Amino acid sequence: MPSSPNLFVYHQQEIIPLEKAYLHISDLAVQRGYGIFDFFKIQNNVPLFLDDYLARFYESARLMDLPVPFTPDELKKVLYQLMAKNQIPESGIKMVLTGGYSEDGYTPAAPNLIITQQPVSLPTEEIIQQGIKIITYSFVRELAPAKTINYTTGIRLMKEVKAQGATDVLYYHNEVITEFPRSNFFIVTHDNQVRTPEQDVLKGITRKNVLELADKKYPTAAGTVTLTDLAQAKEAFLTSTTKRIIPIVQVNDQIIGNGQPGPVTLDLLQDLTTLENQHALVASF
Amino acid sequence: MPSSPNLFVYHQQEIIPLEKAYLHISDLAVQRGYGIFDFFKIQNNVPLFLDDYLARFYESARLMDLPVPFTPDELKKVLYQLMAKNQIPESGIKMVLTGGYSEDGYTPAAPNLIITQQPVSLPTEEIIQQGIKIITYSFVRELAPAKTINYTTGIRLMKEVKAQGATDVLYYHNEVITEFPRSNFFIVTHDNQVRTPEQDVLKGITRKNVLELADKKYPTAAGTVTLTDLAQAKEAFLTSTTKRIIPIVQVNDQIIGNGQPGPVTLDLLQDLTTLENQHALVASF
Repeated sequence: MPSSPNLFVYHQQEIIPLEKAYLHISDLAVQRGYGIFDFFKIQNNVPLFLDDYLARFYESARLMDLPVPFTPDELKKVLYQLMAKNQIPESGIKMVLTGGYSEDGYTPAAPNLIITQQPVSLPTEEIIQQGIKIITYSFVRELAPAKTINYTTGIRLMKEVKAQGATDVLYYHNEVITEFPRSNFFIVTHDNQVRTPEQDVLKGITRKNVLELADKKYPTAAGTVTLTDLAQAKEAFLTSTTKRIIPIVQVNDQIIGNGQPGPVTLDLLQDLTTLENQHALVASF
Repeated sequence: MPSSPNLFVYHQQEIIPLEKAYLHISDLAVQRGYGIFDFFKIQNNVPLFLDDYLARFYESARLMDLPVPFTPDELKKVLYQLMAKNQIPESGIKMVLTGGYSEDGYTPAAPNLIITQQPVSLPTEEIIQQGIKIITYSFVRELAPAKTINYTTGIRLMKEVKAQGATDVLYYHNEVITEFPRSNFFIVTHDNQVRTPEQDVLKGITRKNVLELADKKYPTAAGTVTLTDLAQAKEAFLTSTTKRIIPIVQVNDQIIGNGQPGPVTLDLLQDLTTLENQHALVASF
């Protein structure tokens, strides 16, 4: 269990210390891995793009037939109460909605909503300058449009990722690239087109922001990206809420571009950072 | 939570009342749906085919890189302690092994082992005589050889199953049938061949027993079974630990055979019942 003193969580209709937050074993998350979640970042005490994250949370819940016990406005109140209690200016909030305390171990009951807040740190400057190596794996995430709690394959592959000296694993199926277990994927082609997979992926909020930023400067497309496209790409990067943008310089044994983080990648990271900083400032006024 | 008074469970190294068995929310089952389980039946106070179930439990744990905190002999001792405490002659025991209390919400820690025991009842005579309707769905279970706790698709489809007046949903992929979420599948061809899917399925212990029983009387094969094979089948049935054998008389809108449970199906159910009764008697001496 995380050894994080003084963290509070929302659980069973109250805000309580993290170390006291327990679920009965009859919960369908424990019995059947059944649940959804979402995660957003707080910067300068301001939740970034909160409405986008809440919309996705409710959509995941809908796709899994799990009623959220709050309206979005009610949920926001709870989130702000938790933030006020924890006072962690640079952090992330995770909302987990489980299948609830099932009578028969299979049929969902009233969902349990658990909201946790933890400090987060952005990738180091060193990682941005060096970029990362990734490996690939043939797999499509179950119910990809929903942010379910199921990470069976992603977690199981972590040992192989580390054995290969890599940082993450990129899923593909029938030569078509989809996503990372927890991040979206982009390439930059030799004519500076910015492209990201569109089918069978979780639509990341950072992915959406990067698409909008890229569209102002570069030819931009969300569509099919194949392994061949990746092999011919000039740059590649991943996007995620906690990581923003991380340059990818190697895929399996293959070097991408010149093996260095590319100018379009770094340009978009700068634009994204600026956008997030603006939101954190504007929203706080 | 199940309202079952006087049930005891094994949890956190002790045998405690079910209603007191809680997991901290940092457990990877809650955070990431990461865990495995197994389930065996107790008849006349005797666990049936226990070594087979334990072997599969350890194999699932191995496939998911989750160390079981006991040797099989140590685990058996715990199981018998729990059985002695609960005293439920006709019941089932479920062993769940989760990813443990993760520090970072992603990396597995020391697994949590939870063992529960509940009364079980076999299918009614009415169900056996009528058979059931099933529907089909294109899907392959993630890491099919392991009994993971991930039932995202199976549970999500229950609403559709009920809407169609069906009892269960049969998975197939590229026309090849695999399994039900919690049961295996068999057909009987017009020349009385008994066949069951072999690839991308969880190898059920009841499936194994039925294959062995069938092989004594009928041409029997574990291999590829397609939707076309099913459409042309004379009989179809499912097998599971709790359900033994249930005849399938309708698949989507199509009637199987003459719409009645078939003689080979009922013959195998009788043989399976005899086998289980023998084990329950022999093992108790």
